[in-house]
Amino acid sequence: MGSIVLDMSMSLDGFIAGPDDNASDGLGVNGHRLHAWLAEGGGDDPLTFRPSGRSGEIFDEVMATGAVLVGRRTFDLAGRWNGDHHDGVPIFVPTHHPPPDDAPSGPANITYVTDGVESAAAQAKAAAGDRNVMMHGADLAQSCLRAGVLDEMEIHIIPVLLGQGRRLFDHLSADHIELEITRVVDAPGVTHLHYRVNRTL
Amino acid sequence: MGSIVLDMSMSLDGFIAGPDDNASDGLGVNGHRLHAWLAEGGGDDPLTFRPSGRSGEIFDEVMATGAVLVGRRTFDLAGRWNGDHHDGVPIFVPTHHPPPDDAPSGPANITYVTDGVESAAAQAKAAAGDRNVMMHGADLAQSCLRAGVLDEMEIHIIPVLLGQGRRLFDHLSADHIELEITRVVDAPGVTHLHYRVNRTL
Repeated sequence: MGSIVLDMSMSLDGFIAGPDDNASDGLGVNGHRLHAWLAEGGGDDPLTFRPSGRSGEIFDEVMATGAVLVGRRTFDLAGRWNGDHHDGVPIFVPTHHPPPDDAPSGPANITYVTDGVESAAAQAKAAAGDRNVMMHGADLAQSCLRAGVLDEMEIHIIPVLLGQGRRLFDHLSADHIELEITRVVDAPGVTHLHYRVNRTL
Repeated sequence: MGSIVLDMSMSLDGFIAGPDDNASDGLGVNGHRLHAWLAEGGGDDPLTFRPSGRSGEIFDEVMATGAVLVGRRTFDLAGRWNGDHHDGVPIFVPTHHPPPDDAPSGPANITYVTDGVESAAAQAKAAAGDRNVMMHGADLAQSCLRAGVLDEMEIHIIPVLLGQGRRLFDHLSADHIELEITRVVDAPGVTHLHYRVNRTL
């Protein structure tokens, strides 16, 4: 079975969106800066924003995942990816308030999960089979860290201080969580850090 | 003339001390974890905590600085290093409340600067000559970033989530500050990231 891997771009000062993020501007003021690395090196394919070089290898790895686990807010802000994040893999969205039954249910590969992040994580892992699950969203990451169901993290550290905005790591308890550095990739305009979450400590 | 280089160990979630830091426990709960890398690899010299391998090279570089610029809180918590941080280089401490004139003044290489961080930075640079100035302290780092007098940063990213504590980057404005990645060192138990602060953007 694969791992649940959080995939997020974060400023050195810990933000994944600038201030004043909202439905019409999901990344907030200057937040788009965090995703500029996707266009570094000229990008082999502007339609999919695949970067070149080592960042491209990281990008390919992330996109080889077999399911997506995403927070409701991130999911909605991204326009629900029109139902297809990549390759039509199943998308799981933990939420307390799924769309009403009589609303258009959208593509069949979207599953709203109302019985908690542990259940959502288990369903996503089962759906992904031997492949990993890509996780998106700061609130969801925090919930999964608290619940102990996050296996790995691929954090793209961006060389910028946003100063204010939405933090990736926030609202956690003071029980510290040990990580293991499993890969460091120094690429143009971004440092890709891969960690395994050590839940035994 | 050298550069002013902030040198800090920071958890992946942005903390430089755990919660409940105080005069008797300057690093707070679990905060000592952030400095474990100094003992990685067996340390060539347990008295000075010099680590081995590539972390040792980073350590040597930091210790080759010609002056220290440190926040008052950090300075006091560190026991004022008994007046000698390393090699007897001059130490500059910006503060609104220097010790009273009739208090023991301590070693002559400590200068309390009361007319602002710009002045303290200029004095430290002048004292360091061609060498760099090592800067310590989160509050001071924030003040110097706001004042535009920080040149570089050597951030030791520690693979741990402390969850709560004292953040390195906090209380900054939403005017984002561009950085340039100048070196990435992947060492056991720590990732050393060096940045140049780009003040022209």
